[in-house]
Amino acid sequence: MDCIFCKIINEDVPSYKVYEDDKVIAFFDILPFSPGHTIVAPKHHVADIENIEEKDLMAMIAVVKKIGKAMLDGLGVKGYSVYLDNKSAANQHVPHVHFHIVPRAEGDGLERWPQSGYGDGDAEFYLRKLTKEL
Amino acid sequence: MDCIFCKIINEDVPSYKVYEDDKVIAFFDILPFSPGHTIVAPKHHVADIENIEEKDLMAMIAVVKKIGKAMLDGLGVKGYSVYLDNKSAANQHVPHVHFHIVPRAEGDGLERWPQSGYGDGDAEFYLRKLTKEL
Repeated sequence: MDCIFCKIINEDVPSYKVYEDDKVIAFFDILPFSPGHTIVAPKHHVADIENIEEKDLMAMIAVVKKIGKAMLDGLGVKGYSVYLDNKSAANQHVPHVHFHIVPRAEGDGLERWPQSGYGDGDAEFYLRKLTKEL
Repeated sequence: MDCIFCKIINEDVPSYKVYEDDKVIAFFDILPFSPGHTIVAPKHHVADIENIEEKDLMAMIAVVKKIGKAMLDGLGVKGYSVYLDNKSAANQHVPHVHFHIVPRAEGDGLERWPQSGYGDGDAEFYLRKLTKEL
């Protein structure tokens, strides 16, 4: 399997390892948005949220919470952002599902995307399309 | 409690409600990054990840997974991004913990932040500070 994260998990590729248990691994992103930027991934290869078992997704989010707290306590940061890009259309570059945890500071310039509004009836239109699948 | 999300939960403020169960609510962000952009929050007011019980965080992520799948099936999008800004230093604007789910498309212009690298010894330095809390 030519997956860079699997190679990191198998220690065929070195990493700055933050955390590891039987289900989940965490290591530094080597091109960080801020110092300490960490990737959290399942040790079992799955591409995306649609393919992960719910218990493994829950194990991942528990590790995100644990590492986030360690960032607050250990790195002296006042907040952090968590994100997960799901599938290549969302700019998921490595097709092995993973969260990013990015230490944040006031005025760090890490801005979100431009917002828009809904035209007349548009929100209702999208709401119907979405909720019919729920 | 002067919390806009609590007002939405209590239906004192209207919303485009996507989903609701006993623990979790989901509704449209009215200033979306893309059509269908949805907020997922616990019904019980807690400010951030440090204050949420793990079972409630897990209930949230299960709902994120469910709504993400509905976005793929119902909105015809090919991917989505999930994020959570934790604390005001991370630009958390509403102090009631919440995930965003943003439908994505190739070339939608929703770009991540500028990356940097680590100088000599810097990654090791931050890794020590972080892992001593784990």
